[in-house]
Amino acid sequence: MSGTVYLVGAGPGAADLLTLRAARLLGEAEIVFHDALVPGEILSLARRAQLVAVGKRSGRHSTAQRFINKRLADAARKHRVVVRLKGGDPLVFGRAQEEIDFLRARGIVVEVVPGITAALAAGADLGVSLTQRGVARSLAFVTPRVGAGESPSTWVQSVLAADTAAIYMGAGEAPAIAQALMAAGKAPGTPVVVIENASMEHRAVHGTLAQLAVLAAQLSGGPVLILLGEVLRKAARAARSATARRRLAR
Amino acid sequence: MSGTVYLVGAGPGAADLLTLRAARLLGEAEIVFHDALVPGEILSLARRAQLVAVGKRSGRHSTAQRFINKRLADAARKHRVVVRLKGGDPLVFGRAQEEIDFLRARGIVVEVVPGITAALAAGADLGVSLTQRGVARSLAFVTPRVGAGESPSTWVQSVLAADTAAIYMGAGEAPAIAQALMAAGKAPGTPVVVIENASMEHRAVHGTLAQLAVLAAQLSGGPVLILLGEVLRKAARAARSATARRRLAR
Repeated sequence: MSGTVYLVGAGPGAADLLTLRAARLLGEAEIVFHDALVPGEILSLARRAQLVAVGKRSGRHSTAQRFINKRLADAARKHRVVVRLKGGDPLVFGRAQEEIDFLRARGIVVEVVPGITAALAAGADLGVSLTQRGVARSLAFVTPRVGAGESPSTWVQSVLAADTAAIYMGAGEAPAIAQALMAAGKAPGTPVVVIENASMEHRAVHGTLAQLAVLAAQLSGGPVLILLGEVLRKAARAARSATARRRLAR
Repeated sequence: MSGTVYLVGAGPGAADLLTLRAARLLGEAEIVFHDALVPGEILSLARRAQLVAVGKRSGRHSTAQRFINKRLADAARKHRVVVRLKGGDPLVFGRAQEEIDFLRARGIVVEVVPGITAALAAGADLGVSLTQRGVARSLAFVTPRVGAGESPSTWVQSVLAADTAAIYMGAGEAPAIAQALMAAGKAPGTPVVVIENASMEHRAVHGTLAQLAVLAAQLSGGPVLILLGEVLRKAARAARSATARRRLAR
């Protein structure tokens, strides 16, 4: 007999963007393994649980994946409700499959509870629909990050073929991203927004693909998402007008 | 003085996959305009609200978009909290921009509350991560539906360029979708799953792109999502083994 491991999406950051199910499971959990970036307000919902930080912060693998897998399996043998809490949605750039496969191979029941992924929270912050009739009928989530030993990624082609693209975990490589996309034929004037801390005290900087490196450099180290596509053109214009009005008002 | 219109994602169907914020706003709402497919269990959270169904069911435009826009603006002049409740996430194939633009042009405050979109719920039901290290570093949401007067869509190219693709509102056109993708060069053996009523009493049928039309024909009219990509290969194999075991057991 073993407990169930719930891979739970913590959502984009704002505590009230958790799902009702995620909140309930946190309340029932005996032990919670969480990413480094999950805010304290969300962790505090796990009233009776032992909290274990296993987060892999950008660039730092504070706990190796294999070690996380093993700790989850050990916990399931001791506890009825084990929560593995991941930022955003567990199935979008969350390395969930490695945990699911490891646990299921050992006969442990795994359930996935979806969460709000950063791109949708960013769109909500901006008030911009990521698909729009006549403008954008496709939306791609990509990351330029590739793991050690992975084959070259097709993320550039995915961005090129999508009307709207959300680039995850790309802030540190903004200059290379802009260069790769423009070299592949993406228009330098494509509207871009770089948004930091989506769903919380967020900051969004608007511009074009050609300006991406400069835009990303204006942010201050929080989790960042890059959105690009024609759907952002009107929001970029509104942001420019607001800046111009502020300048005039000085 | 006018109220605020909240464009709220109702999520994929299961009532406990609403966000905490969505549930709170439904409880505070004085009037709720909702899509046809939002389950009664979710609507019942709007205890004090007048409920107005404005849903556009697949194929039937029961209420024209312009009329919805106008009703939302009228409601914001009378009520403090107006909720526009949309299935899934409001910014993914939800025609949200038309409502946002119409309301903002009239000085009405609009806020967007994200929701769990069907693709993430389907992945959770299947226990399959939609991105996987070394297998899938991009995920595209597309729809083959184009509105009247819209230019030909690039959805085929988006699916081709993405490692994993989720096709929304495509069940009725499954034969044409398979044909278009294979004609463009997508491998007929690409793993596919067609999932109906994701997050609820769902039904998933696995197969290949070449079999898509046959798979879609097995479902019974609920909301359907098509997922395709290599990430599904292992799940398809597991489903085939389970079917074979059931046959042997008879």
